[in-house]
Amino acid sequence: MPTPEQMEAAVHTYVEAFAKGDPAMAAGIFADDAVIEDPIGTELKVGKAAILEFYVQSMATGATLHLQGPVRVATAHAAFAMQVRLHWDGKDMAIDVIDTFAFDEAGKVTEMKAYFGPGNMIAK
Amino acid sequence: MPTPEQMEAAVHTYVEAFAKGDPAMAAGIFADDAVIEDPIGTELKVGKAAILEFYVQSMATGATLHLQGPVRVATAHAAFAMQVRLHWDGKDMAIDVIDTFAFDEAGKVTEMKAYFGPGNMIAK
Repeated sequence: MPTPEQMEAAVHTYVEAFAKGDPAMAAGIFADDAVIEDPIGTELKVGKAAILEFYVQSMATGATLHLQGPVRVATAHAAFAMQVRLHWDGKDMAIDVIDTFAFDEAGKVTEMKAYFGPGNMIAK
Repeated sequence: MPTPEQMEAAVHTYVEAFAKGDPAMAAGIFADDAVIEDPIGTELKVGKAAILEFYVQSMATGATLHLQGPVRVATAHAAFAMQVRLHWDGKDMAIDVIDTFAFDEAGKVTEMKAYFGPGNMIAK
């Protein structure tokens, strides 16, 4: 079972990867066969290559992640609230997002879901 | 498909039910065959009778829910960060929780998961 410390560290590595603009660092927290649903309800990205490409594209917007409140860490799961700040279509934007991570025994993320919709997007 | 307004209203009804100490009001946002996993990783509560009993027990602690930041509303899903304040074992406690809801076509909650662990509990 992953430890609470491992799971919380994965979240902080993920945030730091965006701060550094390092897609490989973000992809590195995931298991090889991990699945991303971002936002929830849209097409899945499956496996390391698709996940790396997803973060290359995400970081091309200059997105940075800003945690809001403590990371919630449960048995083999974590959830966290954050604001994503990015540059999109010539404008600065902020999006209020909640992400959930599920972890495998080794502490790698096997499933990520991002919860947000149009009502959570703020043009600046 | 449920509307964003329906999904956000369900969250606010849920918070209000705790403020009123009304378990039936909380159970009322769920579909008949809904499944609760609270906290995630523990035994499921399945169906209206089990869900009502769960909220009777939860509210016996005097628990109230305090939203932290905006409700995230995606396609047929919502997520929200909150602090649960309650009285447990002779002490006032606060627990930082993130809940996720999945909705059916009629706007009823079919699945609820609560993310928190020992590190999210604060004795007062």
